[in-house]
Amino acid sequence: MIRPVRLMAFAAVVLGFAAGIEQRAASGQTPTSGGPVDPALIEDLVAANRILTQQGVLDESGHVSIRHPANPNRYLMARSLSPALVTAEDIMEFDLDSSPVDQRGRRLALERFIHGEVYRVRQDVSAVIHTHSPSVIPFSVTSVPLRPIILPAAFLWTGVPVFETRNAGVPAADMVIRNRHLGKALTNSLGDKRVALLRGHGDVVVGPDVRTAVRYAIFTETNARLLIITIGLGGGPITYISAEEGAARDSDPGIPDRAWELWKSKALGK
Amino acid sequence: MIRPVRLMAFAAVVLGFAAGIEQRAASGQTPTSGGPVDPALIEDLVAANRILTQQGVLDESGHVSIRHPANPNRYLMARSLSPALVTAEDIMEFDLDSSPVDQRGRRLALERFIHGEVYRVRQDVSAVIHTHSPSVIPFSVTSVPLRPIILPAAFLWTGVPVFETRNAGVPAADMVIRNRHLGKALTNSLGDKRVALLRGHGDVVVGPDVRTAVRYAIFTETNARLLIITIGLGGGPITYISAEEGAARDSDPGIPDRAWELWKSKALGK
Amino acid sequence: MIRPVRLMAFAAVVLGFAAGIEQRAASGQTPTSGGPVDPALIEDLVAANRILTQQGVLDESGHVSIRHPANPNRYLMARSLSPALVTAEDIMEFDLDSSPVDQRGRRLALERFIHGEVYRVRQDVSAVIHTHSPSVIPFSVTSVPLRPIILPAAFLWTGVPVFETRNAGVPAADMVIRNRHLGKALTNSLGDKRVALLRGHGDVVVGPDVRTAVRYAIFTETNARLLIITIGLGGGPITYISAEEGAARDSDPGIPDRAWELWKSKALGK
Amino acid sequence: MIRPVRLMAFAAVVLGFAAGIEQRAASGQTPTSGGPVDPALIEDLVAANRILTQQGVLDESGHVSIRHPANPNRYLMARSLSPALVTAEDIMEFDLDSSPVDQRGRRLALERFIHGEVYRVRQDVSAVIHTHSPSVIPFSVTSVPLRPIILPAAFLWTGVPVFETRNAGVPAADMVIRNRHLGKALTNSLGDKRVALLRGHGDVVVGPDVRTAVRYAIFTETNARLLIITIGLGGGPITYISAEEGAARDSDPGIPDRAWELWKSKALGK
Repeated sequence: MIRPVRLMAFAAVVLGFAAGIEQRAASGQTPTSGGPVDPALIEDLVAANRILTQQGVLDESGHVSIRHPANPNRYLMARSLSPALVTAEDIMEFDLDSSPVDQRGRRLALERFIHGEVYRVRQDVSAVIHTHSPSVIPFSVTSVPLRPIILPAAFLWTGVPVFETRNAGVPAADMVIRNRHLGKALTNSLGDKRVALLRGHGDVVVGPDVRTAVRYAIFTETNARLLIITIGLGGGPITYISAEEGAARDSDPGIPDRAWELWKSKALGK
Repeated sequence: MIRPVRLMAFAAVVLGFAAGIEQRAASGQTPTSGGPVDPALIEDLVAANRILTQQGVLDESGHVSIRHPANPNRYLMARSLSPALVTAEDIMEFDLDSSPVDQRGRRLALERFIHGEVYRVRQDVSAVIHTHSPSVIPFSVTSVPLRPIILPAAFLWTGVPVFETRNAGVPAADMVIRNRHLGKALTNSLGDKRVALLRGHGDVVVGPDVRTAVRYAIFTETNARLLIITIGLGGGPITYISAEEGAARDSDPGIPDRAWELWKSKALGK
Repeated sequence: MIRPVRLMAFAAVVLGFAAGIEQRAASGQTPTSGGPVDPALIEDLVAANRILTQQGVLDESGHVSIRHPANPNRYLMARSLSPALVTAEDIMEFDLDSSPVDQRGRRLALERFIHGEVYRVRQDVSAVIHTHSPSVIPFSVTSVPLRPIILPAAFLWTGVPVFETRNAGVPAADMVIRNRHLGKALTNSLGDKRVALLRGHGDVVVGPDVRTAVRYAIFTETNARLLIITIGLGGGPITYISAEEGAARDSDPGIPDRAWELWKSKALGK
Repeated sequence: MIRPVRLMAFAAVVLGFAAGIEQRAASGQTPTSGGPVDPALIEDLVAANRILTQQGVLDESGHVSIRHPANPNRYLMARSLSPALVTAEDIMEFDLDSSPVDQRGRRLALERFIHGEVYRVRQDVSAVIHTHSPSVIPFSVTSVPLRPIILPAAFLWTGVPVFETRNAGVPAADMVIRNRHLGKALTNSLGDKRVALLRGHGDVVVGPDVRTAVRYAIFTETNARLLIITIGLGGGPITYISAEEGAARDSDPGIPDRAWELWKSKALGK
């Protein structure tokens, strides 16, 4: 049973009913809300933050967003907060310029522009994750490509580009994706892929829904870790997942909810 | 004290007394049950799922089965569920075609055919485990053989074949062992060994009973991890466990129950 | 609510009100106290001990100090105790000779001279950490330089010297920084940097405040671990954080409190 | 408060007062007891089992013993049981032939002969530990010597021999130290050192008391792990702890009780 008081507080956050907006976003005008969102979807978004932390993919920073189900020009993401601490009350709504619908003085994630620019271009994407996934870092600072070797990471078969801020054509002295221009450059680098690495920084992972994107983020980390070990083993040519195998897996990804169920149970406690 | 109501529910599951079968198996006819099973054996099977998860051998997927003690043409395995969440109520019974005795709408593990086909051919085997054991993956995608270096993994001395779906002679575009033909091809690859790797996927481990198979699965992972480190050390020839040492250990495996006792206590809580 | 009795005990420790001084420091005269310290600052110092342990940077030894906010010639640090066990009651006050203001028989950290000598020379520093940070050790016993590859460790761009006791010009047969002379030699090696390694021993990390120093210590460990893996990957030239990127990050370090908030919550329990 | 009943049960175990001896030891005659032992010493022995498990040095097997304080020809060690589960009630007494004073049907550790034979020869030793310490394994199956690089493992400076059962001059087909002859051969290999590796198996660690031996076992594992990483870094010559540094550290080992205090608190719960 959810208590009515909490439900109202929650509605105030998501629907933008709150009166006192203490701090305006950078863009001139406050965007309108896409409307109420099914609490079950918000619960999945919160669970995604917790799961990715529990699985070692997110650390003290990084973020997860979903596209607004009723308005494709809005997305939902937590205020600037460690993912491990995110609750439903922390979820905010943004337009594709990454301006908040109802900021109310809350601190915004600096790199939210990653999300807005991806949603603008990739109509097939309804969830975006930005991580500091540790095992992908070595692939981002060397010329060794991150390719899939394990079945549950077969989705990497289409390739994993590396985004280099030095070549972004936009000033980015501190490597942070802190404006729309850098978000757009990163989105260009991502192309039609599911994962792009950010050099010396982490990755961006996209999917058709938040559970799929979480699965992609977790198995990208697992695959990277096992590929590092495999390369270290030095046993001649490595058998990667082939294009045929990857495409077959895409069309029948097994029983993904089984993993989600376990991850959620571990992340949120029994 | 187990409450009578729960005992009855449990009996219904294992013995197939339940009336409403909601979904038929693929094979035309529902197989008959091999009869009641000692709850202590079911408890070991459940513990095996939990132990292998706690020890990092099983993750969100993978499965453990035992041969039915009263009917060698039946085996017992959980419905499709993460091993960490398996309870006695989730255990189902299958024939060697991997058709369920009493499905009642429960989702079946896609790769159950591994189990049925191994039991059909290997009369010496009464427990089968399929894992995504992380440290065996590098040996499955390179030409480096997985050989034993530590005493408790001496059982690997007979060799560890690698099953490659591309060479299975059966269509397996997505590498999943999703039918009897692939289960049979994998069983051929396993031969008379205790462990076979599945390329880019994990392994299958077999034993005369579930406690022994669990021990094999755990020390296969441990040995793989330490062999990776040893090879990385680059200190010239490696001293592997010899055939003589392996055979001697086979005939006197120490005090295996001591480890089982600890693993179970850690996996199920004190 | 803090109970008055405990508050008084705390004041006695920090302010040196206790009557019975059971053991004199090495220097002839007991130094005077710098005066009371804001309990919130002490709480940060205690949290720093716990956070660095929880994050795997400190182990059974190592220590964290802060400069006294009211007297730059005093610093505050726990008595000799594993950092995981430190409470506000364990915090002692020292002068820059590392003599205690109010020892009362408590055992002193052998290597406290690291702290006193750094504070004497580095006016920009108000927090010093000495760790056995595991992943920096390999860089301390080989000629491979520890350089930054990840954004949150960009602060390492100014370089990481290695202090070798054999070259200290001071007897140090057992490598322990057990007197002012060795503390001074180490401080010379540190120069104007934020981190110096101690060969076969660990590191010393300094910052303008304790939260920043904690962040430096944690990301030095993370960066070292990922650089080890990257070097092992063997993929040609490594893209390190550049001087320009490091300087840009120095001038805008993101939202450091977000990480502190999470680390503290993890280290001190929810 | 310890309840009298439990105290009496404890006395029965340690002092051999129990009437019904259900199973005789191999040697013809039951040895006499060395007499009562200070419960604080037994508590340290139990804590050692738990600490070494919590620190990842002991796993489901391995054992810790102390020499009887009143009779140098007796030692105390748990019955065959995973170290994580050992309590005071499980401690048994043995003579130097490794025959139990009061077996009462309890199962004995197969490799107890390691302990008896070391105590027979090494008068300076009052604690013996046998582990499967994972990171020492690679050094036991290659020609890379395990040498100290970190200060707290400086005690390894006198060298770490590797015992190879194939060269023991005694039949040992399965590598298990299952009799006095093999225990003696291992003791010869150990010589006057503190640690010897057992090829493909683990190590034996000895010390003047149980706290010191625990410290040696833990830092042997830590040093081995960091040396593996250091060698993998490939940065030219490695600076090992020198003989001078090792000897200096031997004469002043810091504040070892600080680590014991923390380890015990972690292993036994707060």
